[in-house]
Amino acid sequence: MKDTVVSQLNPQPYHSPSRLAVGQPPIGIDIGGTKINAAVVRHNPATGEDELISLLNSPTPTDSETFLNTLVDMIQKLNAEHSVSAVGISTAGVVDSIHGRILGSTGNMPALKNIANLKELLEAKTGLPVHVENDANAAAYGEWRCGAAKGSQNMFAITLGTGVGMGIVFNGQMYRGSHFYAGEGGHIAIAHKRERKCTCGRWDCWEAFASGTGLQITAEQTLEAAPETAQQEFKAKYCENGKVTTYAVIAAWKDNNHIGQQIIDDWHNHIAVGLSSLINVMDPDMIVVGGGLAQFVDFELLLERTRERSMSDAFQLVPAALGNHAGIVGAAYLALESQPEPLA
Amino acid sequence: MKDTVVSQLNPQPYHSPSRLAVGQPPIGIDIGGTKINAAVVRHNPATGEDELISLLNSPTPTDSETFLNTLVDMIQKLNAEHSVSAVGISTAGVVDSIHGRILGSTGNMPALKNIANLKELLEAKTGLPVHVENDANAAAYGEWRCGAAKGSQNMFAITLGTGVGMGIVFNGQMYRGSHFYAGEGGHIAIAHKRERKCTCGRWDCWEAFASGTGLQITAEQTLEAAPETAQQEFKAKYCENGKVTTYAVIAAWKDNNHIGQQIIDDWHNHIAVGLSSLINVMDPDMIVVGGGLAQFVDFELLLERTRERSMSDAFQLVPAALGNHAGIVGAAYLALESQPEPLA
Repeated sequence: MKDTVVSQLNPQPYHSPSRLAVGQPPIGIDIGGTKINAAVVRHNPATGEDELISLLNSPTPTDSETFLNTLVDMIQKLNAEHSVSAVGISTAGVVDSIHGRILGSTGNMPALKNIANLKELLEAKTGLPVHVENDANAAAYGEWRCGAAKGSQNMFAITLGTGVGMGIVFNGQMYRGSHFYAGEGGHIAIAHKRERKCTCGRWDCWEAFASGTGLQITAEQTLEAAPETAQQEFKAKYCENGKVTTYAVIAAWKDNNHIGQQIIDDWHNHIAVGLSSLINVMDPDMIVVGGGLAQFVDFELLLERTRERSMSDAFQLVPAALGNHAGIVGAAYLALESQPEPLA
Repeated sequence: MKDTVVSQLNPQPYHSPSRLAVGQPPIGIDIGGTKINAAVVRHNPATGEDELISLLNSPTPTDSETFLNTLVDMIQKLNAEHSVSAVGISTAGVVDSIHGRILGSTGNMPALKNIANLKELLEAKTGLPVHVENDANAAAYGEWRCGAAKGSQNMFAITLGTGVGMGIVFNGQMYRGSHFYAGEGGHIAIAHKRERKCTCGRWDCWEAFASGTGLQITAEQTLEAAPETAQQEFKAKYCENGKVTTYAVIAAWKDNNHIGQQIIDDWHNHIAVGLSSLINVMDPDMIVVGGGLAQFVDFELLLERTRERSMSDAFQLVPAALGNHAGIVGAAYLALESQPEPLA
């Protein structure tokens, strides 16, 4: 059934040379719902690797003024130490990264509500060029630049967490679509009969099945459908206060509990259905899976299930390599590359 | 629920200038299951439009030798008349368009089974540069170059026929993925519980619902579920020999028959679920819907259903403009553009 792939558009590693090695290094800042992380990203000639230095962090303020001041303080501190070239910011929300404006809602970050023009504000206060990027995009770019997808021509990165995030690199460039809405892969539909509502308000989004939230719903439904005695055994053994959490499911799965295995098996199927749809449209050479839940993914099983549904089987499916730092690294790289290249 | 789109990456029409206006024109050839169509594609300075001239056609031979000779004859005839610059070929199957090789199966074209290296063979026999492209890609490129999607930055074209074809143009370039498998949008999954088998052997592909084949299955299932009297009325009024064809459904729909309306409504939902998934991943500014079944699409209804599921509503959804000629035009353009640019 599977066609044989006999050639590849670009069999050579696909990378324009890193600009980290020359000139001043950039700052990368990752704005999360609870914490802001900032660091300088530089190339270490001794190890040949890129590295984060002077990592700073702070709780994410909820009011806009404190929030902005926190960012400015971090930038100024890092700049004083390292004399940086540019600042890259990774944030939730749809981001117009040309103008550095945040479009639409940013969920759990009230401070960003009144700050649409983040780039402009920070540039005025710090005198440094600022690039703002959607967090899933920044993480994907980080993994592509110096993480698990180095050398890939066409890749996408999936983040499995409370939701499902996605960032895309085509032909060695961040792909943002026509209106910065590209990569909302979490919201492709994997059902069409109103089976499960997504937190976005739409029905049957991939995220409603493959995310942590989705896994939990699958767990509850599977448990409810199980015989009473098996249910009670499961709850007594793995659940605290009768609560069916992701942790409970993972514990049951690791313990070879039948219900736990069923839930995790279904979860892998859910992830695979979405992944293979994305593969069939985009034909990537590499797919990176990261996020808090990636640690529970059985990559061998996921690859098998994904291949069953994919037209090409020439892709690699790999765990993310940069962990929580992917957004910082990606944003820093994008900030650096948005600046004119220094003369050699 | 819908975020407001306040900006666009590239609000200007996105087109490198057409090279048709200068130098010798290319030939475009569309190889179909039953017919081969060939023509010269040129720019008409009098009308300011691109046009097909000297359209030739022939039944598609089933043996490889006659097939090749037919192509060579067509090319030589058109070249003798118009002194052409290059030949573009649009064909079913996954095509390595760098090397002009056909990878994997080409379904209903037995003649192509033993001709993997189509480019090489035709170049040797005609002395002209040949470019071979997947038919859905060529059709999309044709619509982008001089059809319904002119000026678009990121677009995709869907062909609703026996199957569902797809071609993608990103940043003004044909997008083929890493192994020429991109654009198999017909095989994204719109269900995950083994609801309907696709002709590709996989389960629940979009094509199994949105194509003509899919529409027919939906029709049969809907009819079976209807009350006996309504079934009999439907069959007596719209079906020849009791057969539930697409034509019967369309006739019933146009006649405001309740079952016919239900089927066509479901079909629009099926198309919309797949379209919105593609939109959420790719954020195009334009989507072109063509193919034999496009004439039955209610574009207003489809747009409404698609928007309900899409993160961005800034796309245009338009019917294809070039009809059966899209593949010829697209292949001709791609052949021309694969050649070095003539000196001004």
